[in-house]
Amino acid sequence: MSRYIVNNPKKVGSAPGTLVHIGSRFKENSEITFIKYDKETEETFHTNDIDKCFSYIDNKKINWLNIEGLQDVSIIERIGKEFNLHPLLLEDILNTGQRAKIDDYDDCIFIVLKVLTYNKNLKKIKSEQVSFVFVNNCIISFQERDIGVFDNVKNRIKVSNGNIRKLGADYLLYGLIDAVVDSYFVILENFGNKIDSVEDALINNPQKGILKSIHNLKREMLFLRNSIWPLREVVSILVRGDNSRFSENTIVYLRDVYDHIIQIIDTVEVYRDMLSGMLDTYLSSISNKTNDVMKVLTIISTIFIPITFLAGVYGMNFKYIPELEMPYGYGLFWVIVIIITLLMIRYFKKKTWI
Amino acid sequence: MSRYIVNNPKKVGSAPGTLVHIGSRFKENSEITFIKYDKETEETFHTNDIDKCFSYIDNKKINWLNIEGLQDVSIIERIGKEFNLHPLLLEDILNTGQRAKIDDYDDCIFIVLKVLTYNKNLKKIKSEQVSFVFVNNCIISFQERDIGVFDNVKNRIKVSNGNIRKLGADYLLYGLIDAVVDSYFVILENFGNKIDSVEDALINNPQKGILKSIHNLKREMLFLRNSIWPLREVVSILVRGDNSRFSENTIVYLRDVYDHIIQIIDTVEVYRDMLSGMLDTYLSSISNKTNDVMKVLTIISTIFIPITFLAGVYGMNFKYIPELEMPYGYGLFWVIVIIITLLMIRYFKKKTWI
Amino acid sequence: MSRYIVNNPKKVGSAPGTLVHIGSRFKENSEITFIKYDKETEETFHTNDIDKCFSYIDNKKINWLNIEGLQDVSIIERIGKEFNLHPLLLEDILNTGQRAKIDDYDDCIFIVLKVLTYNKNLKKIKSEQVSFVFVNNCIISFQERDIGVFDNVKNRIKVSNGNIRKLGADYLLYGLIDAVVDSYFVILENFGNKIDSVEDALINNPQKGILKSIHNLKREMLFLRNSIWPLREVVSILVRGDNSRFSENTIVYLRDVYDHIIQIIDTVEVYRDMLSGMLDTYLSSISNKTNDVMKVLTIISTIFIPITFLAGVYGMNFKYIPELEMPYGYGLFWVIVIIITLLMIRYFKKKTWI
Amino acid sequence: MSRYIVNNPKKVGSAPGTLVHIGSRFKENSEITFIKYDKETEETFHTNDIDKCFSYIDNKKINWLNIEGLQDVSIIERIGKEFNLHPLLLEDILNTGQRAKIDDYDDCIFIVLKVLTYNKNLKKIKSEQVSFVFVNNCIISFQERDIGVFDNVKNRIKVSNGNIRKLGADYLLYGLIDAVVDSYFVILENFGNKIDSVEDALINNPQKGILKSIHNLKREMLFLRNSIWPLREVVSILVRGDNSRFSENTIVYLRDVYDHIIQIIDTVEVYRDMLSGMLDTYLSSISNKTNDVMKVLTIISTIFIPITFLAGVYGMNFKYIPELEMPYGYGLFWVIVIIITLLMIRYFKKKTWI
Amino acid sequence: MSRYIVNNPKKVGSAPGTLVHIGSRFKENSEITFIKYDKETEETFHTNDIDKCFSYIDNKKINWLNIEGLQDVSIIERIGKEFNLHPLLLEDILNTGQRAKIDDYDDCIFIVLKVLTYNKNLKKIKSEQVSFVFVNNCIISFQERDIGVFDNVKNRIKVSNGNIRKLGADYLLYGLIDAVVDSYFVILENFGNKIDSVEDALINNPQKGILKSIHNLKREMLFLRNSIWPLREVVSILVRGDNSRFSENTIVYLRDVYDHIIQIIDTVEVYRDMLSGMLDTYLSSISNKTNDVMKVLTIISTIFIPITFLAGVYGMNFKYIPELEMPYGYGLFWVIVIIITLLMIRYFKKKTWI
Repeated sequence: MSRYIVNNPKKVGSAPGTLVHIGSRFKENSEITFIKYDKETEETFHTNDIDKCFSYIDNKKINWLNIEGLQDVSIIERIGKEFNLHPLLLEDILNTGQRAKIDDYDDCIFIVLKVLTYNKNLKKIKSEQVSFVFVNNCIISFQERDIGVFDNVKNRIKVSNGNIRKLGADYLLYGLIDAVVDSYFVILENFGNKIDSVEDALINNPQKGILKSIHNLKREMLFLRNSIWPLREVVSILVRGDNSRFSENTIVYLRDVYDHIIQIIDTVEVYRDMLSGMLDTYLSSISNKTNDVMKVLTIISTIFIPITFLAGVYGMNFKYIPELEMPYGYGLFWVIVIIITLLMIRYFKKKTWI
Repeated sequence: MSRYIVNNPKKVGSAPGTLVHIGSRFKENSEITFIKYDKETEETFHTNDIDKCFSYIDNKKINWLNIEGLQDVSIIERIGKEFNLHPLLLEDILNTGQRAKIDDYDDCIFIVLKVLTYNKNLKKIKSEQVSFVFVNNCIISFQERDIGVFDNVKNRIKVSNGNIRKLGADYLLYGLIDAVVDSYFVILENFGNKIDSVEDALINNPQKGILKSIHNLKREMLFLRNSIWPLREVVSILVRGDNSRFSENTIVYLRDVYDHIIQIIDTVEVYRDMLSGMLDTYLSSISNKTNDVMKVLTIISTIFIPITFLAGVYGMNFKYIPELEMPYGYGLFWVIVIIITLLMIRYFKKKTWI
Repeated sequence: MSRYIVNNPKKVGSAPGTLVHIGSRFKENSEITFIKYDKETEETFHTNDIDKCFSYIDNKKINWLNIEGLQDVSIIERIGKEFNLHPLLLEDILNTGQRAKIDDYDDCIFIVLKVLTYNKNLKKIKSEQVSFVFVNNCIISFQERDIGVFDNVKNRIKVSNGNIRKLGADYLLYGLIDAVVDSYFVILENFGNKIDSVEDALINNPQKGILKSIHNLKREMLFLRNSIWPLREVVSILVRGDNSRFSENTIVYLRDVYDHIIQIIDTVEVYRDMLSGMLDTYLSSISNKTNDVMKVLTIISTIFIPITFLAGVYGMNFKYIPELEMPYGYGLFWVIVIIITLLMIRYFKKKTWI
Repeated sequence: MSRYIVNNPKKVGSAPGTLVHIGSRFKENSEITFIKYDKETEETFHTNDIDKCFSYIDNKKINWLNIEGLQDVSIIERIGKEFNLHPLLLEDILNTGQRAKIDDYDDCIFIVLKVLTYNKNLKKIKSEQVSFVFVNNCIISFQERDIGVFDNVKNRIKVSNGNIRKLGADYLLYGLIDAVVDSYFVILENFGNKIDSVEDALINNPQKGILKSIHNLKREMLFLRNSIWPLREVVSILVRGDNSRFSENTIVYLRDVYDHIIQIIDTVEVYRDMLSGMLDTYLSSISNKTNDVMKVLTIISTIFIPITFLAGVYGMNFKYIPELEMPYGYGLFWVIVIIITLLMIRYFKKKTWI
Repeated sequence: MSRYIVNNPKKVGSAPGTLVHIGSRFKENSEITFIKYDKETEETFHTNDIDKCFSYIDNKKINWLNIEGLQDVSIIERIGKEFNLHPLLLEDILNTGQRAKIDDYDDCIFIVLKVLTYNKNLKKIKSEQVSFVFVNNCIISFQERDIGVFDNVKNRIKVSNGNIRKLGADYLLYGLIDAVVDSYFVILENFGNKIDSVEDALINNPQKGILKSIHNLKREMLFLRNSIWPLREVVSILVRGDNSRFSENTIVYLRDVYDHIIQIIDTVEVYRDMLSGMLDTYLSSISNKTNDVMKVLTIISTIFIPITFLAGVYGMNFKYIPELEMPYGYGLFWVIVIIITLLMIRYFKKKTWI
């Protein structure tokens, strides 16, 4: 659950804008990928030296600076100085406990998103933070570590697949956001299958473990929902198109991303409703079971208790019990027992208990 | 449930605008119906050759191009080229996992709707995608397969029933949307009857199977609700009349469709409330039954347990038990048994258990 | 329940604007009442001939045309032609499955309302449709049959009670709407009394039948709520005063009607909350009862089971059981029995079971 | 519950504006208090003659006309004539079943509020209607009877405490509204204490009566909530300051009242949540109790049933039962009984039942 | 619970603006800290004499007057006079039962916030009131007592850490608000851990005490939620930037605080959902337990009741019972007993009860 324990967004009491990395340290060194392209040319190189990148930036082309690993605060600081970024923006990059958000500074746009991955061991969705700075003709993206979410975009740039090389930096940013939203679909498909299998188990063989599974799924849906709603807001702000950095053309594409997010939200809500329904089914199956157990007990008891009494009567040692002397007494006893039993069974049948 | 498993809206990582058909392949070949009409004349022909259609288009008349079957991507591509449609629009036509939506491109309007059909074998509502492009004087409609939903419109055009031949392409589009909304009413009537019969069963003979029926109906209502809400949004946008493609006159008709949708939503909400009430009734009927079973057990037990004890007492082998020696001992025993039984019965009557 | 089964608002697939009466046929012939009045004069006559009415209309006076019975489609058609009404408006008059709504056509206002009546046999609220067309200086009202809801208005016109003769056609329309809203108060009072009596029964003697009563009342409240909300919307649109047909003065009166509707909504919500509370009370009373039954069973069983065992022990046929030989063995047995019983009773008292 | 039974806001079918007093008749005669003041002077007199008051009104001073008792319709009528008030306004004063509301007439403001009092015998909150007309420099207040809610305001005017004598009629109206809102705080404190004591009882000794107490409190909260929400609306409209009758200065004070109302609403919502929690606690305490009863039954039964069987076995009369002949047979029997008992106890301990 | 009992915001009936301290008296004397600083210089001194402070105020520098302890009403009065503050503002400072709020007076801004502290003995969150007046270049803060929440801000001013010395009084006010919001994160972390441990207990060993813990946590979350929502509103008003007292630059920082508040709200909602889920789990665990107890009872009873009957039969004293005479009668009896037992066990296994 620790993932829900909110992280204090900065060291308590430190001055705002103090740069401290808050989050897991996935890797030792930050890796920097620098991609520069226009319609005709494309250059990629990997480095650890951020200053080298700055000298390569060419504002006539589209520049993409991808930083993997946030523990090296000095890189963030130097980027902040080079592009004249607000100290709070830098603080937000480093604090990985942010919600998805968009901040519109005068000279740049800052976007924080969450990429989701599914941890099979813990059976939990984990979210990692990705943030983007869009300044001049430059997109700077920050990831906690490389989880391959941008590989397709890199490829498309390399082979000039689709429009990506023909359109501007805003389209690149769209492409990256789209890649992040894609990661939600993968998680959702996964969960759809899981809900399916829990439902099958619920119908065929409701075990106690199912309750835990349902609650787990509900909690993951809660997590997903809390991740996707702020994302919706971010993209909705972009789609509204108040921002001159995004061309009309790119906004059409962002609207497409927005539709996808709405679809994800719809599905999450349906899943939540289905899980609630499954919980109800489970609880009423317990009630039904208790009822069944009760019926068995009642049937057995109500048949045997009266005839046991009868047997007890004829086990009594009274001096004079006329029935005991009758020659067919014992036979008669069994006849009475059978009659009582049959009457009881008829009564239970009438009550539809058997 | 697979219908709730969200389809990734495109092959993950493919460039946006890549045309791939996502959905069931209902038929092998796409069929094209082309209808061209004005007040006086009407022409219909069926073909497989989309290019032939293009040459027939007459912008002074109203042209309706109906494509059945989406698996032939090349047709979509050629339509896209001919009418200069946005690649995302084409992608949306092919991806049948869309929500109902309306996209207002500069030179055309694109509408996605869902037609509902009821699959009797699976006891599930299925939805199929219908999309419309309204460009110039031309309506292009795309269906996954022919389910007859537009037959009436075709007829009305043929026999010039109502206003359809007198009014423009926007009225034709209204007619098609109206036909889609009609499909929801058919489904709703169907469900109203089902809820009725489940309710009767619930009152007369609540079996365990009912719980499943109620949950099934609840889920279908959930599905219906998730289908109808986006539809409401689409028509509400049209009714607002920001779009110059729709004449004042047609908007009056669209407002009528909007009223129908609100009526459907109202009914779905009522059904959902009724199903919740039925669930409550079912659960409290189980509680009541358990209570009844308990009562029977308790009545039988509390009557026989004390008298069985008494029989046991007089079955003891103590040397000296004075009652055993009494001549009327056995008779007295029965008298006591009857008194105890009567007292117990009186007690239960007071408690209104019997 | 059939009242919730949505009626397809037109024969599926028929052209919009086709005139077909949808609803119950309460009477064979439509009856027309024509009332024409101004400050000084008032004329009323009844007829079956709609054309005769048209010739009597005097646009300097206020004309009220009241049609009772909708099955004669030709009357509606001729009114449509005379006043140049939109075909959809006529369709809506005839289709009695509408929600309350207001449509603002260029040259007339069209209002659909629902009058509620309580059917004592079915224990259900029934709603009948009333629609109004306000065109020129003429109010045309359409009822499914005469249920007396407008009698007071007719009277006030006749005896010139209040302002009705002094003010315009808009005030007449207000008077008719007010009369419809009054019908809701009658229903509500009725239901308030019913909820009261069910509550009394719940506290004094909770029978199984109560659950059904509560659910019935809940359903009727649901129906009422679904009827009143669209009504609120209609009057709220009128109050907003965008429409030049309503004078400032009449809007003050409509605001009064609006307040009444809000009061009805408030009451319905309170009733719904109260019914939910009653359901909770009922369910916990069942739980309590089961608990009581269990306690009786447990008390009897736990007292008698040990002493029955003891009796069984001394009924054994072992060769050597020393207690059996003791002279006071039997007396001692009873002493032990009484001690066990007293200890048990003390235990139950401590547990507050008895 | 009758307090929830909605009163028809006028005699059904009577013309709007007909003056009839609807409500309880608390007193026989209406009493009129007339207070006229400015910075320097203050005059108060009591009368039954409304006309006398009119002659005393001095529009250079602030005039407060307080009417106690509404059954004398003629007084209301004469006030209406004197100040030229709208007939609907007069109707609303007399109909004590109104919600709190504000009506902004051209030449006056009309405010209806509800004062709450707690009836200890019925254990119910009762609400009485207070209405205000603010016309020229005159505040006319109408109460059903004197419940002392305005005594403080009267005092402050008399002794010129605070700003009241220095500021205008709008400030007087603020003072009266403030006094009404104060009556809600008194009720709330009362309820806070009650919820506290029910909660204590719930934890220490949950009796059946508690369920009724909780439901009673829930219902009173429902009533309070329904009373306070319209009040919020009224004051929010005043605070918005669209009305030129209220000075900037007074609006600051009204904002303070608004804050108090929000605080009341917050508290009511918290109380509702707490009561729901208490209901849950109560219900699960019943379940727990049933579980406890079951455990006792099961422990006693499962220990004694097997050994009772054993005793039965050795009570059988078979010719040849070898154990019966054993010299230590009886002793052995008891050893077995004790072993079975100990095993059972160990099992229950493992299950944490004892 | 007394913390929810609403405090009457003023002595009932007293004139608005009357200064009375309402709340706990934490300390005997008020302590005043005065800090005056600009980019270069910084002066701090502590005093009890408020008038001395006034003479030191230098409107070219930034002045921060921190009052700890509210029971000395005269200090508040003198501050009110010196800065010409509205009497309602002074009343609000003294009444510690306020919600967080912001009031925008013409010449000053007044902000009320709640600082949260966790009382370990009562296991309850307590809130203390902090209010700020921002007038000219002066921030006056009022605390009920010193709980160290502003220590960091004081330090940063002293050592000139971050921007605080470089920016204006609005940035100081931001810093103080930020410090208050930080106190919520501390509480939340605390609660996250508690929910974690209750959840562990729930899975591993659900005791009755857990229900109380869950309800306690729910109530604290309710309290937190009711504290944080008004705070959100306050900061949202500041962020909207209608107020010229806050520079563009400071608003960027306030937006950061706003993001933190949204994060807190999100977390509180997640915690509430989790606690509801835990309640469900607990209740179904009780049901499960009852079911388990029932099963044990039923298994033991249904096995032994029939064979006890059999033993009773052969304990009867009928003259002629043929089985008793059979040489292997007793052995046969045991064979039958074992067969019955095995059949029963098989039946229970089939039912998956054992």
